[in-house]
Amino acid sequence: MNYPELFLKKNEDKRLRQGHLWVFSNEVDCRRSPLEQFAPGDLATVCDADGKAIGVAYVNPNALICSRLLTRKSNLKIGESFFRSRLNQALGLRQRLFDKPFYRWVFGESDGLPGLVVDRFGAVLSVQITTAGMERHKDLLVKVLCELVEPTAVLLKNDTGQRQLENLSLVPELVFGELPERLEVVENGTRFLVNIAEGQKTGWFYDHRENRARLAKLVRGMRVLDLFSYAGAWGIPAALGGAAEVCCVDSSESALSLAQASAELNGVAGTMRFERSDVFEFLKQARERREQFDVVILDPPALIKRKKDFKSGYEAYRRLNHLALQVLSSSGILVSASCSHHLSRENLQEILRSSARHIDRHLLLFAGDGQGPDHPIHPAMAETEYLKAFFCAVSSTI
Amino acid sequence: MNYPELFLKKNEDKRLRQGHLWVFSNEVDCRRSPLEQFAPGDLATVCDADGKAIGVAYVNPNALICSRLLTRKSNLKIGESFFRSRLNQALGLRQRLFDKPFYRWVFGESDGLPGLVVDRFGAVLSVQITTAGMERHKDLLVKVLCELVEPTAVLLKNDTGQRQLENLSLVPELVFGELPERLEVVENGTRFLVNIAEGQKTGWFYDHRENRARLAKLVRGMRVLDLFSYAGAWGIPAALGGAAEVCCVDSSESALSLAQASAELNGVAGTMRFERSDVFEFLKQARERREQFDVVILDPPALIKRKKDFKSGYEAYRRLNHLALQVLSSSGILVSASCSHHLSRENLQEILRSSARHIDRHLLLFAGDGQGPDHPIHPAMAETEYLKAFFCAVSSTI
Repeated sequence: MNYPELFLKKNEDKRLRQGHLWVFSNEVDCRRSPLEQFAPGDLATVCDADGKAIGVAYVNPNALICSRLLTRKSNLKIGESFFRSRLNQALGLRQRLFDKPFYRWVFGESDGLPGLVVDRFGAVLSVQITTAGMERHKDLLVKVLCELVEPTAVLLKNDTGQRQLENLSLVPELVFGELPERLEVVENGTRFLVNIAEGQKTGWFYDHRENRARLAKLVRGMRVLDLFSYAGAWGIPAALGGAAEVCCVDSSESALSLAQASAELNGVAGTMRFERSDVFEFLKQARERREQFDVVILDPPALIKRKKDFKSGYEAYRRLNHLALQVLSSSGILVSASCSHHLSRENLQEILRSSARHIDRHLLLFAGDGQGPDHPIHPAMAETEYLKAFFCAVSSTI
Repeated sequence: MNYPELFLKKNEDKRLRQGHLWVFSNEVDCRRSPLEQFAPGDLATVCDADGKAIGVAYVNPNALICSRLLTRKSNLKIGESFFRSRLNQALGLRQRLFDKPFYRWVFGESDGLPGLVVDRFGAVLSVQITTAGMERHKDLLVKVLCELVEPTAVLLKNDTGQRQLENLSLVPELVFGELPERLEVVENGTRFLVNIAEGQKTGWFYDHRENRARLAKLVRGMRVLDLFSYAGAWGIPAALGGAAEVCCVDSSESALSLAQASAELNGVAGTMRFERSDVFEFLKQARERREQFDVVILDPPALIKRKKDFKSGYEAYRRLNHLALQVLSSSGILVSASCSHHLSRENLQEILRSSARHIDRHLLLFAGDGQGPDHPIHPAMAETEYLKAFFCAVSSTI
């Protein structure tokens, strides 16, 4: 294929050669290949300063990440068979990993499809396109997705703020079939009701699947507190795992109402309660009334969305973990998670260490897990790693 | 309790206050509290430069780590009730985590018992004492261990080189009961035969338990290569998980003979073969004859035992991973592990990234797990974290 060439400055090919897929706008030799000659979403052959082709990428001249590599084969045509091959390969890995068709089918860059996320909920697909380059192939993508798994509905869940960086509209679009108001998700054998059209992100967070399975085995007879509970993905398995009592706290009425409905579906509504509250406020009040829980799950939304928010976000994680430890009974378990890429494992571990020392408790990390296997990490792209979940055994000081 | 005082130099209490348990000999104020006044294993109250007590520790004036904190309660007596309380607390966590009595009961510093490791194999205990301070309480420890779980045998597996640093003998000692020549270990529901008296370390490596369970679900119909197979802890579950063929490679005849016996015990000897070979040699020859495997497990012994071995050890890990990738079929799975504390997660990830790029293959990390929950990490002691296991999906370049 002959795509127009996008030349990099000298030595700016290094990161790509190491396996990374992104080109930043300041790395382009704009005299040789002016970015303005490309329209958002155009394809290009990316070349090093010596003119040697590195691969085929799409381009957005208006974005900081101005180009993302789709293939290292510089003669590959980016068309239907390209997308079919990529989607098939990603599907193959998931089918190897999971018995049931509930998983993240495509995890963007890791699956060689930058700017694309596809979550599969049985016969329903929830798709997020976050770049102009992927948006350009929207119709083709939907066509191939439909051919491969014959869904009953495909929703483009285009309400993510990331799309703004690429000047894309924020309007969700049902491009195929019909969407039930409440959909059933099966995770670790448990059924949950979700509303993907109204829900956060694609509607469900498969990334904690294994961590939730781990939790469910640890809670028999325990009083469990599920903070930022959303649709009850931690709380309901805990109740099914034999918890004496599960308290779900979230600020969203609609999330709690879904959680309640799922609790009823699973026959555990009797041991669960649902508190609509700001989590900080709830924790402060629980501490004041000396309420204690044997297990606390702290799985907040991303509190550090951009690098520049690190300081305030770190402080928020610190305060939350500190408060959570204060409502934990002796010999309790804290599950502390973060989905902020910018908060490293080491950062979260340090927060746990210092919070425990501060209130003079002995804290051990008996599991430190990451994102589930349908969110594979690209070893050359630190950006693809984001989830941390530490399971902490907390006792009085030793 | 009035133990003699061990004074630290100014500011040298910082690490201890952050939660760490070790004192290095250069941190002691030797004019105020000469180390020579302590015999190996003596107890002391560790104090900061202002004379404020930090806790009770044992001392070895001849070791670089000259003192290890046992408690932050400076008036606590280090006697029978101390050890009973510590062992009980560690036992409580394991009993919460596991149905069956097969686990690492005590993981040294993490469980507040520096210098002590206890592995439980049903009714048999395999104990490693690595410091003079813990050796001093040997009889008490054995007494309390026996009271708590009524074992049929307690073996002090004192053949670890670490003991040399503390001038302790390297002679294993059966201090209680009788030891069968071959012992049965149950891990993830599978039975294995081990010889703890002759085996490596305590005789078995529980730390990979969860990683082996993960593997067993991924191998149906596959050709599996288990490198450094030892007693078949990866290979046998793979065969039970439906692998078409499992090849175990190890340089130890006795390890392979145990693996063979366990394979027979589990009725999978028919799909397994056992090759006695140096792993590097085996891989080079397999590459030459273009033999390929769908799944390769690379779980070498620690190749970086001391920090100064980092460079040569890193190179050995790199070569092994490189060779392993070269015998992996397209769409294969590589499980790459390291138990060297000095090889970080990032180091191993970088080895995988660069090896895959070097032979132009697409490698994804779909799981990056650590040591099992009976090897909990102390968040203030990086030294307690050592195991990494990356599950890699490897395909042709994209």
